[in-house]
Amino acid sequence: MLNNDSIVALATASGTGAIAIIRVSGPDAINIVNSVFKSIRNKDLTKQKSHTLHLGHIVDGSKTLDQVLVSVFKGPNSYTGENTVEISCHGSTYIQQQIIQLLLRKGCRMADAGEFTLRAFLNGKLDLSQAEAVADLISSDNEASHQIAMQQMRGGFSNEIAKLREELLNFASLIELELDFAEEDVEFADRSQFNELINRIEFVLKRLIDSFAVGNVIKNGIPVAIVGEPNVGKSTLLNALLNEERAIVSDIAGTTRDTIEDELTIGGIGFRFIDTAGIRETQDVVESIGIKKTFEKIEQAQVVLLLVDSSQLTVNSLSKVKIEIEKIKNQFPLKPLVIVLNKIDQISQNEIASIREKLTTDNSQLIAISAKQNIGVEALKNQLLSFVNTGALRNNETIITNTRHYDSLLKALEEIQKVKFGLETGLSSDLMALDIKEALYQFGMITGQVTNDELLGNIFANFCIGK
Amino acid sequence: MLNNDSIVALATASGTGAIAIIRVSGPDAINIVNSVFKSIRNKDLTKQKSHTLHLGHIVDGSKTLDQVLVSVFKGPNSYTGENTVEISCHGSTYIQQQIIQLLLRKGCRMADAGEFTLRAFLNGKLDLSQAEAVADLISSDNEASHQIAMQQMRGGFSNEIAKLREELLNFASLIELELDFAEEDVEFADRSQFNELINRIEFVLKRLIDSFAVGNVIKNGIPVAIVGEPNVGKSTLLNALLNEERAIVSDIAGTTRDTIEDELTIGGIGFRFIDTAGIRETQDVVESIGIKKTFEKIEQAQVVLLLVDSSQLTVNSLSKVKIEIEKIKNQFPLKPLVIVLNKIDQISQNEIASIREKLTTDNSQLIAISAKQNIGVEALKNQLLSFVNTGALRNNETIITNTRHYDSLLKALEEIQKVKFGLETGLSSDLMALDIKEALYQFGMITGQVTNDELLGNIFANFCIGK
Repeated sequence: MLNNDSIVALATASGTGAIAIIRVSGPDAINIVNSVFKSIRNKDLTKQKSHTLHLGHIVDGSKTLDQVLVSVFKGPNSYTGENTVEISCHGSTYIQQQIIQLLLRKGCRMADAGEFTLRAFLNGKLDLSQAEAVADLISSDNEASHQIAMQQMRGGFSNEIAKLREELLNFASLIELELDFAEEDVEFADRSQFNELINRIEFVLKRLIDSFAVGNVIKNGIPVAIVGEPNVGKSTLLNALLNEERAIVSDIAGTTRDTIEDELTIGGIGFRFIDTAGIRETQDVVESIGIKKTFEKIEQAQVVLLLVDSSQLTVNSLSKVKIEIEKIKNQFPLKPLVIVLNKIDQISQNEIASIREKLTTDNSQLIAISAKQNIGVEALKNQLLSFVNTGALRNNETIITNTRHYDSLLKALEEIQKVKFGLETGLSSDLMALDIKEALYQFGMITGQVTNDELLGNIFANFCIGK
Repeated sequence: MLNNDSIVALATASGTGAIAIIRVSGPDAINIVNSVFKSIRNKDLTKQKSHTLHLGHIVDGSKTLDQVLVSVFKGPNSYTGENTVEISCHGSTYIQQQIIQLLLRKGCRMADAGEFTLRAFLNGKLDLSQAEAVADLISSDNEASHQIAMQQMRGGFSNEIAKLREELLNFASLIELELDFAEEDVEFADRSQFNELINRIEFVLKRLIDSFAVGNVIKNGIPVAIVGEPNVGKSTLLNALLNEERAIVSDIAGTTRDTIEDELTIGGIGFRFIDTAGIRETQDVVESIGIKKTFEKIEQAQVVLLLVDSSQLTVNSLSKVKIEIEKIKNQFPLKPLVIVLNKIDQISQNEIASIREKLTTDNSQLIAISAKQNIGVEALKNQLLSFVNTGALRNNETIITNTRHYDSLLKALEEIQKVKFGLETGLSSDLMALDIKEALYQFGMITGQVTNDELLGNIFANFCIGK
C-alpha cells in the first residue's frame, strides 16, 4: 500500500447544511489545494504554518466556486500523519460536488472508505484497535457504546495488550537464546518469573474475553420480545419507556421505525423491542402461523416481556395467561421472563394482589404498571437493566466489543495456555518458542503490529467515506 | 437585538458523517469552550492566536465526550465578527448532541435559524443582500443560481446600489441646504448634474428590474409540461435528457421524486418536467377528468412538450394529434409548444418528413428524436434553452433573483421617476426632498442600511440553523 497519492472526500454528513468539510490528504495535498485557492490576503498556502486557518475562494479558472475557510495541517502533525487540508465550504451539495470534482481534476483521487484512518494507522498515528474505535465511535448512539469506543480510541486496551506483548517478547528472545546454547542446557529465562508473566497474561486475557458478553450487549443492544394480544397497551408501554429518551430515538427513527422493532436506551444500554402477536391457543390457521412467528421472535430475544391487560382479566382469560406463561417457560427455560400487568390504574390494589398470586410464585417476576399513568415504568426499566451485568462498565474496566478482537484474544489465550502447560511439564525450549511465537502473533493482530492487506481491507471497508 | 450572549449550533448537515462541526459564537465563545476543552498540549484557548487549530478533548467533568479539533477565531476577524469557536468532532449524532448539550449547560443558548449570519450583518461583516445571498448559495443546486448567489455574496449588486445611494444622498443634502436658504432662491444642487444622476439611476434600476425575469427562471427553474399518451416514451425521454446530469439529479431525488415532477439542469438552467396524461377526445368520465388536469398543468408550465410516438401513427391517430395541437394552441396561444416526434429510429426519413409536413408549418416547432437511441436529444435541449434569455447570464451582468429586492427596486424606481418628473417640471425643493428621501429609503432597504426587526426576522427565518 503506497501513500504517494493525495485523496479527497467529503468528511461531513451528506446533504445540505450550513457548512461542509472536504478533506484532502497526501504529500501533495497542500500544493493541490493551493493551486485552486485564492487567499483574500494573497497568502501562499504552502508557506503557512501547520494548524492555521485561511479565508479565501476556491477558483476554477476564472470561475469562483465558493468562499471557503481552509485549515492547513503539515505532516506528521495531522490526523493521517500526512499533509492535510480541510476545506470548510458552504454546505450545498452542488458546491461540495463542484469542489471535489475540481480537486479530482487537479490530481487528487477519491478516497476509499476509511482511507484517511487507514493512512493514520499506516503512518503510526493510531494502532489498529484505536483505528477500529474511530468507526465504533462514529456509529455509537448511546452512552455506554460511546464510552467504550472513547476508551478504546484513547488506547486503553491496546496499550495493555502491547505492554504484555513486549514482556512476552523479552522472554521469547531469552528462550531463543537458550536454543543457541541448546547443547549446554542453560536457562536464560527465569522460569518462575516467566510463569508469573504467563499467569498474569492469562488473567488479563480471560478478563477481556469475559467482558465481551457485556461489550456485545452494549454494542448491539438487548433484544426484548414483547408478547401480548392487541390492545393490551404495547405502544403506550413503548412510549412510556421512551419518555426522556425521545431525542435519541427520533434520530434513529429512520433506520428502525421501518421495521417492527423499537429501539431505546435505558441507563446507557440499548434495548430493541420486538413486537409479537402473542401465543394464545387457537384453531385458526392464520393465527397459528402468528404463534409460530412469536416463538421465533422469542428465540431471538434475550428477555421476554409478557404484557397483560389487567382491566380485562376474567377467570377464563386469567387461566389462558397462565397457560401462556407455562408455554414460554417450558420452551425457553433459561430466558428471563417478566410478566407486565398493565392498566392497573383501572383495578384495585386487592385485585392486583390477587392476580399476582395467581400468576406467579416469584414476586420479582411480575411488575404491575400503568403505562398510561406512568406508574411502575421506572421499576420495569430497573428490572430490564438488572439483566445486564454492567459491573465492568460501572467500574470503568476495559470492555471488548469487537468480534475480531474477541477471536484474537481467544486464540492468544489458547496459545498462552499451551505455553503454561509447557512450563508445567518442562517442555523443551524449541517447542515452547513456537507456542510463544503464535501467541505473540495473535497479540500483534489486535494492535496491528502484525497485519496483512486482507485484514486491513476488511476492517476499513466498514468505515464511511471521508473518515 | 443584543449580542451579549453566546450561541451554539450544529453547522454541518444533520445525520452521521465522519466529522461534524459545532459552531459557537459570542463574546464568551472562547471562554465557554475553553472550560470544557482539555488541550493535549495543555494550551489555554483564550491565549491562542486567531485562526489557529488545536487538538484536544471535550470533557464533561471526569467524562471525556470526544477527541476534537478546535478552531479559534477572534472577533472581529470571524464570520460573525464576534469571538467564534468551531469544534470539529466525530460525526455521530450522539456525540453532536452531547457536546451541544454540554455547551448549553455551560452558558450558551441554541442559535436561531440564520443567527450567525444575522450577527455577521449586525456587526457590519456583510450587507443585507450579501447575507441573503448566503442562504441562496446554500440552496443553489445548479450552476446558474450558484453563480448569481456567489456574485451577490461578493457584493456585486449591492455595491452598485450603495454607490448610487451615496451619490443621491449627496444631492439630497444639497437640496436640504436649499431649503434652509429658501427665501433667497439659490440652487446649490446643480440641476443638470442631478438630472444626469437620476437618469443613470433610472437606467440601472430598470436593468436590474428586467433581470428579475431571468433571475426568477434561474432560481426557480422552468416548468415544462410533457403531454403524451402512455407508452410514447416519456420516461425514456426524461432519462435521455438526464444523461450526464444524473449526479445532480440523484441528490435532489428525495425532494422531487415523491411527486410526479422530474427536475434536471440543462446548460445551468433548472427545468421541471411535469408529466401529464394527454388530452385526446374521450367519452370516458374518468379520462375527461384527466384531460382537465392536463390543462391545469399546462397552465402552470412555461413550455409545453407534446410527445408523439411516430412508430404508431396511423392516418386516424395523426389527425387526433393534429386536433391536440390545435387545442393546446387555442387554449394557450402565447405558450411555447414543441412537438417531439419520438421513436424515429423505427420509421424512415420520408415518413418523418411526411409527418412533419402534416403536423406543423413551422419547422422549428417539431423536433424528431429517438430518446432510446439518443438521436435529436441535444437539439431538444437547445430548443428548451432557447426559451430562456440567458444573455444577461452569459454577459456576467448582475441578475436579481430575490423578490424582496425586486419589490424595493420597483418602489425605488417609482420614487426616482417622481424625482425625475419634479426636475422636469421645476418642482420646489421641499417637495423634491421628500421624493428623494423615499427613494433613499428603498435603496437602503436593499443593502440593509435602512432596516427594522420585522424585516430582519423575515429574512433570517428562512435560513437553516447553524448558518
